[in-house]
Amino acid sequence: MAKQKPRTLSGFMELLPADQMKFDRMAELLRQSYALYGFAPLDTPIIEASEVLLAKAGGETEKQIYRFHKGDSDLSLRFDLTVPLAKYVALHYAELSFPFRRFQIGKVYRGERAQRGRFREFYQADIDVIGDGKLDIVNEAEIPAVICRTFTALGLERFQIRVNNRKILSGFYAMLGLSDKSGDIMRVVDKLPKIGPDKVRELLTDEVLALTGEQADEILKFISITGSNQTVLSALEEYKGRHELFDAGLDELNTVVKYLGSFGVPQDKFAVDLTIARGLDYYTGTVYETFMLDHPEIGSICSGGRYDNLAEYYTDKQLPGVGISIGLTRLFYVLQEQNYLNSAVTTAPADVLVLPMTEDLSPAIALATGLREAGIRTQLYTEQKKFKQKMSYADKLGVPYILLLGEDEITQGKASLKDMATGEQALLTAQEAAERILSGLATARSAPPIREPEASGP
Amino acid sequence: MAKQKPRTLSGFMELLPADQMKFDRMAELLRQSYALYGFAPLDTPIIEASEVLLAKAGGETEKQIYRFHKGDSDLSLRFDLTVPLAKYVALHYAELSFPFRRFQIGKVYRGERAQRGRFREFYQADIDVIGDGKLDIVNEAEIPAVICRTFTALGLERFQIRVNNRKILSGFYAMLGLSDKSGDIMRVVDKLPKIGPDKVRELLTDEVLALTGEQADEILKFISITGSNQTVLSALEEYKGRHELFDAGLDELNTVVKYLGSFGVPQDKFAVDLTIARGLDYYTGTVYETFMLDHPEIGSICSGGRYDNLAEYYTDKQLPGVGISIGLTRLFYVLQEQNYLNSAVTTAPADVLVLPMTEDLSPAIALATGLREAGIRTQLYTEQKKFKQKMSYADKLGVPYILLLGEDEITQGKASLKDMATGEQALLTAQEAAERILSGLATARSAPPIREPEASGP
Repeated sequence: MAKQKPRTLSGFMELLPADQMKFDRMAELLRQSYALYGFAPLDTPIIEASEVLLAKAGGETEKQIYRFHKGDSDLSLRFDLTVPLAKYVALHYAELSFPFRRFQIGKVYRGERAQRGRFREFYQADIDVIGDGKLDIVNEAEIPAVICRTFTALGLERFQIRVNNRKILSGFYAMLGLSDKSGDIMRVVDKLPKIGPDKVRELLTDEVLALTGEQADEILKFISITGSNQTVLSALEEYKGRHELFDAGLDELNTVVKYLGSFGVPQDKFAVDLTIARGLDYYTGTVYETFMLDHPEIGSICSGGRYDNLAEYYTDKQLPGVGISIGLTRLFYVLQEQNYLNSAVTTAPADVLVLPMTEDLSPAIALATGLREAGIRTQLYTEQKKFKQKMSYADKLGVPYILLLGEDEITQGKASLKDMATGEQALLTAQEAAERILSGLATARSAPPIREPEASGP
Repeated sequence: MAKQKPRTLSGFMELLPADQMKFDRMAELLRQSYALYGFAPLDTPIIEASEVLLAKAGGETEKQIYRFHKGDSDLSLRFDLTVPLAKYVALHYAELSFPFRRFQIGKVYRGERAQRGRFREFYQADIDVIGDGKLDIVNEAEIPAVICRTFTALGLERFQIRVNNRKILSGFYAMLGLSDKSGDIMRVVDKLPKIGPDKVRELLTDEVLALTGEQADEILKFISITGSNQTVLSALEEYKGRHELFDAGLDELNTVVKYLGSFGVPQDKFAVDLTIARGLDYYTGTVYETFMLDHPEIGSICSGGRYDNLAEYYTDKQLPGVGISIGLTRLFYVLQEQNYLNSAVTTAPADVLVLPMTEDLSPAIALATGLREAGIRTQLYTEQKKFKQKMSYADKLGVPYILLLGEDEITQGKASLKDMATGEQALLTAQEAAERILSGLATARSAPPIREPEASGP
């Protein structure tokens, strides 16, 4: 028969079993961490009616959409988890309780140009808190706590959450009489880390933006306010009283910083950073980005912010919210590239491989059944192969323990447990073996999926 | 602004938060149960190249496919998890260890006619064991153990796994000289429970199949062999020695039944049933169906079997396997319809809602932070509402506990814990409250997602 060459589309991540175990462990920790903060799990369809999904979209986004017809229906694959959330909240408004807190980990689709490290199908892991009409500022202080706990649980240590407030930025530009241009200015300022202050000044005063030298200097002075959170907040006090929006933003930022300690966020994990703007017009208050200190070139690994109106394309209800998103597929790819995946994480599909050495498999099956009752992931090796081949199979899977069961062991009511890491072997009863395995696994089971390489310094 | 009416496509399940919690609990238990047997998690893309995905498909399947173009690419959404597995194993053959055991829980797409209880996007939850060249029969005996443990973990009690062997059927039809027609005959016999023996006899002897009356009677006699597993197996012995394939099938069935006890499958959960054929030509050995005893009309809730060649469309390698699939979305729908979902399962997004009664939220935030450290899912209620509204919010979410924190409590270094089920309230330290909550939750956290209605009898 003619064969079809098997292949996976480029831009689609497909992992081998050991890597899939690591990925799944990360996703599981994200779910646990999000759930600890009272976020409810949500799942929405991957396919939506195009007119619903694209009610807001346009430009670059629209071009990337996977859109097609099936029968009479014009359908699209979701390109993020925010638009489906907006639809969900507008559609089920009467049945939800507000504030509505949900997390969602799911695949989204963007037909980006194929490129190393760029994915067309990727997981996003989002949380959002949606208020009905109003939403208290404390929610904006809680988000960095979720980020901090989540990455800490994953095993990342050298990261920092950078926070700003869009009202401070908008108020500041209003002071300079530059409200109309603030969007364009922020896009230029966003490039500061890449192109430096001189180039930024040049772009601000060129014929397109046409700022005066004085205005450009004011902006550069403003965004160069750095230092400890207290230093930055004090410097901002000096701008106070000149514009309402600025003052409101500063109040909010002060509140966020004030509550962070109670939320358990260590000082060094958090910085007020006036250069963080988040390109999207969508955000109206606190904005967040998260950086790996040793890999700033990767960009933000968790971003988000406060918005005033989640679902304005679907409903007249005012639904303010705050949320963040982790691009999980890209993060996993980057961690793998940078050698940040912890090799201590169990990647074997089983904790123990039972190797029967007798023709009648009943005793081996009964042994495996008992181990499973004890909560041990157990594989029964069933194939008729040479001993060496069986051991090589165990090795390749990375199974931490094997249990040998021959006539001798059966006669004694015992089995030989071999610790694959140490090579030690012991003749034990089923219960002793189960206990030994469970205690040996405790460490591996709690190992975080990320471990920063030793080399990484300050 | 003109609003776009929000809607979800028909045939796409979108759950409210409480139901989503139940669904997720089921999926989590499936993952745990599958993992206990040493199956590795797998995730493959939802989109595949059409020529790869449809290498084998045809007829009814092809019509249902979501197929479209993006740029120059001809793409399709997967319609099951078996074809992607075949592709995966053929593509990554050199990097996998065999037997390769994987589970996959993921969404698949079929453009079926919209109909109550029929879904176009639905989860399948599959396990498969794939051998390289050969695969021992013991794997076929292990599958009912996985099914049994899985449904028992979900809380289902009144179910039965029905097992047959395709070799027995094929061998039997070969004895009658009906090998050419065996596929068509099995399709007719499959209808027995619906149309009865007389109608089956009629269809077997009509002008299309044109069996003699004697042949039809032999078939009806054969499939009417029922009773305990031992009764059926003994009756089958009488056909022995007349055809090689039949004898091989009977040997396999005897082995499967022999090992089931060691695998921990209770007698009443399992029955040899000669009418189970599974329509697909694909299956070559043991076949499985699983029925809810009180709802046979629902059909099989978990089916599968042994096949000789998983990936013949992609590779020359002989890759025999055995697997089963649960249609999770449909199962959930049916359980909901039949009132089988356990109301004791926690459906609140949080275990406790912290209600601050002071202007400064720091103490409430610190309290919530401590509870989260203790592993308690904690929501901090932040909105400025009347007390009654706050309580009503807690009620609607179904939160089992609330913690009130006012000036009095803060002064005493305590908080008031209210058990929402009993209405009891107690003034406790943070640690006492955490302990009380954790012990109270233990039952709810381990509650199985399914509870059979009391009314259901034998």
